[in-house]
Amino acid sequence: MAKKRVTLAQVAEVAEVSVGTASKAINGRGQLSPATRQRVRDTARALGMVLDAGGEHPSAGRSFIVGVLTSDSYGRFTMPILTGAEDTFGVGEIAMLLAESRGDPIRERHYLRTLRNRGIDGLIVTGRSSDSRASLREVIDVPTVYALSPSDDRADTSVVPDDAGGAYRGAQHLVNTGRRSIAVVAGPAHHLASTHRAAGAARALEEAGLQIAGGEVLHGEWSERWGFEAAQRLLAATDFDGVFCANDQIARGVLDCLRDQGRRVPDEVGVVGVDNWSVVVEAARPAITSVDLNLRAVGRRAAELLVQMIAGDAGPGGVELVDCTLVARQSA
Amino acid sequence: MAKKRVTLAQVAEVAEVSVGTASKAINGRGQLSPATRQRVRDTARALGMVLDAGGEHPSAGRSFIVGVLTSDSYGRFTMPILTGAEDTFGVGEIAMLLAESRGDPIRERHYLRTLRNRGIDGLIVTGRSSDSRASLREVIDVPTVYALSPSDDRADTSVVPDDAGGAYRGAQHLVNTGRRSIAVVAGPAHHLASTHRAAGAARALEEAGLQIAGGEVLHGEWSERWGFEAAQRLLAATDFDGVFCANDQIARGVLDCLRDQGRRVPDEVGVVGVDNWSVVVEAARPAITSVDLNLRAVGRRAAELLVQMIAGDAGPGGVELVDCTLVARQSA
Repeated sequence: MAKKRVTLAQVAEVAEVSVGTASKAINGRGQLSPATRQRVRDTARALGMVLDAGGEHPSAGRSFIVGVLTSDSYGRFTMPILTGAEDTFGVGEIAMLLAESRGDPIRERHYLRTLRNRGIDGLIVTGRSSDSRASLREVIDVPTVYALSPSDDRADTSVVPDDAGGAYRGAQHLVNTGRRSIAVVAGPAHHLASTHRAAGAARALEEAGLQIAGGEVLHGEWSERWGFEAAQRLLAATDFDGVFCANDQIARGVLDCLRDQGRRVPDEVGVVGVDNWSVVVEAARPAITSVDLNLRAVGRRAAELLVQMIAGDAGPGGVELVDCTLVARQSA
Repeated sequence: MAKKRVTLAQVAEVAEVSVGTASKAINGRGQLSPATRQRVRDTARALGMVLDAGGEHPSAGRSFIVGVLTSDSYGRFTMPILTGAEDTFGVGEIAMLLAESRGDPIRERHYLRTLRNRGIDGLIVTGRSSDSRASLREVIDVPTVYALSPSDDRADTSVVPDDAGGAYRGAQHLVNTGRRSIAVVAGPAHHLASTHRAAGAARALEEAGLQIAGGEVLHGEWSERWGFEAAQRLLAATDFDGVFCANDQIARGVLDCLRDQGRRVPDEVGVVGVDNWSVVVEAARPAITSVDLNLRAVGRRAAELLVQMIAGDAGPGGVELVDCTLVARQSA
């Protein structure tokens, strides 16, 4: 079907600006306030005009500013993603405007309006977990990539760490180093990161012809306390020579309990964590062998896709997985 | 002495722009590229013109964008400062452009050029330690406030946590809860945060008529390992019923050693840390009583001063201290 032909005059009329202003906004030439430019372009798109087509200079109309919307106020997850995005954007070529929503939807809406008014070229949306979040497709009309926390709309483009693949690698390391009775201690059963990691670990055991020690995955909190308690339960219930833990804090709790109970790590029991969070893995006794989620690579890849989308690509859609890496230390 | 009178025509001539463009740039009206606007304004200032005087609208010429330059790639220190700055700036009223220098001076220079070209109204400079950093006074000509890492030029305005006062409060808590033989375990002797905290703790002991247990401050790393080793040394050398630790990681190492050696905390020994870093203090056994540096308040205050400076104030200069808070848990 042929596209409807929309004229500049029509856009100007609906947006209530002069034809000259409409031309500037659409062709990206001359100086306009970002708000006006955005309003005219939104109007043009709403009327069915395809923008940025027709051989104009690719940088025309661009602000070279990308918005980053995060709900991770603590910053442990956001900072490596920002660093990775910067690897892609180049030093100062594309600037990042940071907006931290504190998980508050009203604050988020407000920020998105502000970012749009400032004429951002694109948007990276990130958070503090692998759980999916509401798509912003209906809220903001700029190229958008979701990093770490995927969009719930498969038409959007998301980049996340391969939790299951990383956990598979971690559990496989226990198998490869001779463990035969391996327990799996995960976080909450309603967190995707937790269930994906538990499933990845279980697959590695299954492929090696092993059962999960104790018969099932133990679900609890993302905390050292839970790791400690889970190890107590395991010691009371079953024999085991390996523990796959779905994060480093759990692994550290497991290690503390095993040491208290006189079980030697790694001689008698091997322990693997996930996150490779230096403050936890390096301080533990012994230091924890852990799966790195490569969040910086997630940020780098999200920014690469965003750059392509800003240049006019539709974006691949769906969820792209970034490989995780096993970092071996003393615990396994 | 009367100020030299500089005319628009002179500015226009030197900056090689029309008088109309010079007027737009200086009076903040009309549309200009940020780079041109900045160049003209820099020229005007260089010629001795006082900008933004004379009753023009205070928002004229403003981008409502503030740059944030950080050397803290890990983000543990930067994120609370950003959150605090946002408290001051209001949701979306003033946007923050983030630039992360990774401690690389070349990258930093490049970023500063980019931020200036984007017409930022002001700049917050932050890092990952209380050690002073080189002033940017000669490098970028926008209102600038240093947060956490103060400028080495006292003419600049810096806001930092009151490390010494916070440590004083932490050690005083040990005194007030009946400890009489208190050791002080600090970080590196060449870190200001370490020496300030050690001095604050020593002052609290002195005021209470107490000597430091073991005779002197023990200096080492900012790590659990060092805390563990320091506690071993103390146990071998002296009697003590309290340990003031200059950060939470040291405190956790001390706790682990005391538990290994059968010393009960807090019954026999009280332990206090600094940072109130949840992942460390809440996971320790027992949970650590710690001094919170109130970094969010540091960010809030830095942004308040910056807003005043953007509005035309000269800035107070010097280093303003933000109070720290003791958060009591089980360890003391």
